[in-house]
Amino acid sequence: MTEVVDRPAGKGQRPGAASKPAPGPLRVQPAVDVEALGRQLLGKWADVRLQARELAARPELHKIEGLTHTEHRKRVFGQLRYLVENEAVHRAFPAALGGSDDHGGNIAGFEELVVADPSLQIKAGVQWGLFGSAVMHLGTAEHHAAWLPGIMNLDIPGCFAMTETGHGSDVASIATTATYDPSTEEFVVHTPFRAAWKDYIGNAATDGLGAVVFAQLVTRGVNHGVHAFYVELRDPETREFLPGIGGEDDGIKGGLNGIDNGRLHFTNVRIPRTNLLNRYGDVAPDGTYSSPIASPGRRFFTMLGTLVQGRVSLDGAAVAASKVALKAAIGYATERRQFNASSHTEEEVLLDYQRHQRRLFTRLATTYAAGFAHEQLLQKFDDVFSGAHDTDEDRQDLETLAAALKALSTWHALDTLQECREACGGAGFLIENRFASLRADLDVYATFEGDNTVLLQLVAKRLLADYAKEFRSVDFGVLARYVVGQATGAAIHRTGLRQVAQFMADTGSVQRAAIALRDEEGQRALLTDRVQTMVAEAAASLRGSNRLSQEKGAALFNRHQNELIDAAQAHAELLQWEAFTDALREVEDPGTRLVLTWLRDLFGLSLIEKNLSWYLMNGRLSMQRGRTVGEYINRLLVKIRPHAMDLVEAFGYGDEHVRAAVATGAEKGRQDEARAYFRSQRASGQAPVDEKVLLARTAAAKRS
Amino acid sequence: MTEVVDRPAGKGQRPGAASKPAPGPLRVQPAVDVEALGRQLLGKWADVRLQARELAARPELHKIEGLTHTEHRKRVFGQLRYLVENEAVHRAFPAALGGSDDHGGNIAGFEELVVADPSLQIKAGVQWGLFGSAVMHLGTAEHHAAWLPGIMNLDIPGCFAMTETGHGSDVASIATTATYDPSTEEFVVHTPFRAAWKDYIGNAATDGLGAVVFAQLVTRGVNHGVHAFYVELRDPETREFLPGIGGEDDGIKGGLNGIDNGRLHFTNVRIPRTNLLNRYGDVAPDGTYSSPIASPGRRFFTMLGTLVQGRVSLDGAAVAASKVALKAAIGYATERRQFNASSHTEEEVLLDYQRHQRRLFTRLATTYAAGFAHEQLLQKFDDVFSGAHDTDEDRQDLETLAAALKALSTWHALDTLQECREACGGAGFLIENRFASLRADLDVYATFEGDNTVLLQLVAKRLLADYAKEFRSVDFGVLARYVVGQATGAAIHRTGLRQVAQFMADTGSVQRAAIALRDEEGQRALLTDRVQTMVAEAAASLRGSNRLSQEKGAALFNRHQNELIDAAQAHAELLQWEAFTDALREVEDPGTRLVLTWLRDLFGLSLIEKNLSWYLMNGRLSMQRGRTVGEYINRLLVKIRPHAMDLVEAFGYGDEHVRAAVATGAEKGRQDEARAYFRSQRASGQAPVDEKVLLARTAAAKRS
Repeated sequence: MTEVVDRPAGKGQRPGAASKPAPGPLRVQPAVDVEALGRQLLGKWADVRLQARELAARPELHKIEGLTHTEHRKRVFGQLRYLVENEAVHRAFPAALGGSDDHGGNIAGFEELVVADPSLQIKAGVQWGLFGSAVMHLGTAEHHAAWLPGIMNLDIPGCFAMTETGHGSDVASIATTATYDPSTEEFVVHTPFRAAWKDYIGNAATDGLGAVVFAQLVTRGVNHGVHAFYVELRDPETREFLPGIGGEDDGIKGGLNGIDNGRLHFTNVRIPRTNLLNRYGDVAPDGTYSSPIASPGRRFFTMLGTLVQGRVSLDGAAVAASKVALKAAIGYATERRQFNASSHTEEEVLLDYQRHQRRLFTRLATTYAAGFAHEQLLQKFDDVFSGAHDTDEDRQDLETLAAALKALSTWHALDTLQECREACGGAGFLIENRFASLRADLDVYATFEGDNTVLLQLVAKRLLADYAKEFRSVDFGVLARYVVGQATGAAIHRTGLRQVAQFMADTGSVQRAAIALRDEEGQRALLTDRVQTMVAEAAASLRGSNRLSQEKGAALFNRHQNELIDAAQAHAELLQWEAFTDALREVEDPGTRLVLTWLRDLFGLSLIEKNLSWYLMNGRLSMQRGRTVGEYINRLLVKIRPHAMDLVEAFGYGDEHVRAAVATGAEKGRQDEARAYFRSQRASGQAPVDEKVLLARTAAAKRS
Repeated sequence: MTEVVDRPAGKGQRPGAASKPAPGPLRVQPAVDVEALGRQLLGKWADVRLQARELAARPELHKIEGLTHTEHRKRVFGQLRYLVENEAVHRAFPAALGGSDDHGGNIAGFEELVVADPSLQIKAGVQWGLFGSAVMHLGTAEHHAAWLPGIMNLDIPGCFAMTETGHGSDVASIATTATYDPSTEEFVVHTPFRAAWKDYIGNAATDGLGAVVFAQLVTRGVNHGVHAFYVELRDPETREFLPGIGGEDDGIKGGLNGIDNGRLHFTNVRIPRTNLLNRYGDVAPDGTYSSPIASPGRRFFTMLGTLVQGRVSLDGAAVAASKVALKAAIGYATERRQFNASSHTEEEVLLDYQRHQRRLFTRLATTYAAGFAHEQLLQKFDDVFSGAHDTDEDRQDLETLAAALKALSTWHALDTLQECREACGGAGFLIENRFASLRADLDVYATFEGDNTVLLQLVAKRLLADYAKEFRSVDFGVLARYVVGQATGAAIHRTGLRQVAQFMADTGSVQRAAIALRDEEGQRALLTDRVQTMVAEAAASLRGSNRLSQEKGAALFNRHQNELIDAAQAHAELLQWEAFTDALREVEDPGTRLVLTWLRDLFGLSLIEKNLSWYLMNGRLSMQRGRTVGEYINRLLVKIRPHAMDLVEAFGYGDEHVRAAVATGAEKGRQDEARAYFRSQRASGQAPVDEKVLLARTAAAKRS
């Protein structure tokens, strides 16, 4: 912060903000360069993102509220055709088939569709991200040639039929079977009981002609685990189910009613042997099973790996929805006035209330953090799927990162949409302001493509596994980086995690308590130490569990389930904080960097405040310092206040994306009209006298 | 806990729960007497509540999902007639007009309608609780005779036209005027500008024929503040607006779409002088204003006092919705199995997972607390409205209690509905399970009839005012009671609050830290001390603010707004805890009392855990003791687990109230079918061998 800046403050800045004279040439003026920050937020796939936003701005793709679910489904199906016609959804497919092999760009564009209509985003995701993607990644050349063109151009609307009524997150336990019959060289796809019906399947209720069906592959009396099969569902002419196939409509849902989710079941449905999507496992005509991956467990996780792009895109869509909501609510809060606490004639702007700032700015900070973290996730995803970096380790890192970030950002979006709706009062509840509509649609993001609670357990298991590798690994990214950052000794770097604990112990609680909360390294140390300690404590509690019986081991694990999930969440929050901090380094404009640093500090301190009891109980912060956290957050809110509009402008969403009546300036227009009325009434001398004023005058007259 | 109990355990109890032999005759067996507890939960107006539930169970009153808002509005209007025909909505009205002057019973019955359809509850509330109630409480005999019969029998559907687009919570600032014209002995009702349009008004869009319009009463050049006027809106034949009246439909909302909310505006609409509802303020034919309440401020709050019944009933409805959701989600969690951690053949029941218990049982405990607190509120309300205890002080206590409890319980309902929906995974998102539907409908409960954040500020101001009375008052109920409970000295009782602080200081932090968390007095001391200290600290921070300029005083207040709201919340939580604890004393069955005491402890400890940093920072708990809170909560979860079904059964809601597919036992049926399938497959010897098992066998064969 040593540069001199002399350009004007950002347009959203209040006049008062810059009124304090800079004490010397070294003082940076806080001001957001909205255009430059906006460019940074667009990230690596800025062009694709801008194209997708241009598309999402078109009325043809917007959600119309109040349609019946039947009408809404029809509209969204039509919108899918519109996307095809506008070449918006083929980026991830092979160039040979008209795609562009662009995996990161594909997701970047896809997730922006959420601002048009989340049903459109998810229905497109079902068709191209799940159904098409399964054929592409699990199938081989013959499958690609046979089905991808029709999938890409929507001639074959289709399903990704994995989840069953009886099993959602636990995919390995699904009960649909595909039993090979060498006499006819066919698989017999079969649903043995009601719990094995495919359920919640997008495109299943009405539109799906084909499906990738996940089933236990059985050949020669051996169950080789879950594999994917291409199954034709409906006659393309009559749209009736083919023989042996049946289903049900899942009906109305809490949101996303533009998608026809439904149930499917199969009664000894015969499909050709070659309909097995055989990239990772094949059955020869005689029934011999073969796979390039010997371990059934590894094979299963490899096949499920394609699911990760769903999580990546939900993470991005959740961030986008949060941005749109915050732009509307913060904009409204700069106009709306209520209660005249500080003067008789002028009411307070909502955004000047401390509590209102706390409600919205803490969520603004988290949205920035989640956005920067999403960009890192997207790049990691592209590295893996483009083949640039796709070792097993890369894939595992991607899985963990996606699980951690998707869980946090989808919950965050729901929380933000709700807080924005409440911050706009009754107006927030009107569907014209979209908060309630977006919230309803995004609700299921918290449990589909991996239940958030289950995902955080996956993250926790990964943290434990890394810990258990006796700290040989440096996978445990942020901790390793912390060690590098904190200590220059190579010895500490080499020995990884254990050394962190030692380092923290050596420095002692007194010094730790003195770490400056506002300091980047201080925040990093506190956040990192918490993750490391929680993981170490959980690992210590679970020590020896592998020597117990399965039942006792599971019971021991269960007794620590809550703290494991908390540790995973702490890890994910640290990842977001690190991403925000990384992004600060890329901000060139010093004024922007100053404001964003405050916002990052607000994010970091909010995390520390949320978990303050942990820091106090574990001697990481003294009682005295603990009491300063809330006060420091309050000071940050005041600093950020003048830049709030710039920070939401930088998201780059226009009125055509926000589409909320509260965000149109109408409130300011109404207030100007009211003020003008009262002004002219006073000027005319016709204004009635307030009874209270009259009483005060009478009392004064009596006294004199 | 010294009684001997030998009756059988409750029906929801798992066999394992009672397997540990009692060590002696003094050990109480934990078991819930569902029937007795159910009776206690029904409270003072049990009969009315049961009648209302019987009505709410009828399909005629149930919400049909997927209707357009137009269809839904028509249905709900018809349901209002059904309520009239079934004599369900006249209890609060005067006996002379066919009512029964039963205020508490009226609310008890009314709030149960939420389980049929929240739109029905709120539309009935608009008609009889707001519109009719305003005529009854603000009008006089002539008004009652003229309009109450038509309001009661729904010949006059009407509006409570208070809120304006420009002013919601700040009612005193509404801008609609009613100016008296002595030449014609009429009031001229007028909307001066767009911000003064009445907005979000139920019955305004289509159904309302009449309205109670709140407007600034101006006569002889003096504005006497907000008064209520009866205004005819529409021609009963044509249903068209009368001359000078216009409006708009608020359109689709985030929920409650069975209600036709809309906007109204008035252009010099003339109404007879006698249409002023003149109980608290009147205008003589010559324009002379008179009022039985000299202070305009007190008059305003008296007139607004009728609003409190809305808050009371929302509090009760929020609790009812939470109960229904928890019954469905906890029931499902006892059937649903997922992941086989502890054995190869049997998956875990969701409710045996620690995290699942935490998610649902903490909310179950809060629901019990909120329910007991609501019953106290309802009795207080009845005391005031029946005239049994209706001093100014009683009314103020009622206002504060209603504000505090409504804020907490409505937020709690949203949180509980969401957690229950997520706890049921994808099934939770299907509208057939109602979580999403109820959540959407109840969303606005957090901001209507008083925005929760604004309500908590009212509570905070009351706490400050009580504190400022130099502790003379014993209004500050729970604290006074705490002092009485803790110390026998009359001196301590007499001097109230200050003495509490002294008492806490004398006992010292070491002793405080040793307070047993599981002990009732320990929890009470911790919760009470926190409220008292927060209020005292806020008061100290604000000291002298009344000597500052209005602007500076407001700024000082604003810098402490967040902590004031937190203090109000802590106070409200303490009220809930006290109500739960009071209720324990009324439980006669020792086994039930034991289980409920665990649940109360879970509630108390969850509050302490949530605010643990405060207790640590302020020396109320040592680091060591702080670390035991989470562990003790985990132990309580395990203890409560066998009684969870009994605890939700005691709510007394049947399948006809819950109406959720997940709560029908269908899941258990599907699992039984699946298990039977696998069992018979194994018995037949036809089950395929798992590839993993085969590989293990091969490896073993190689080794031998």
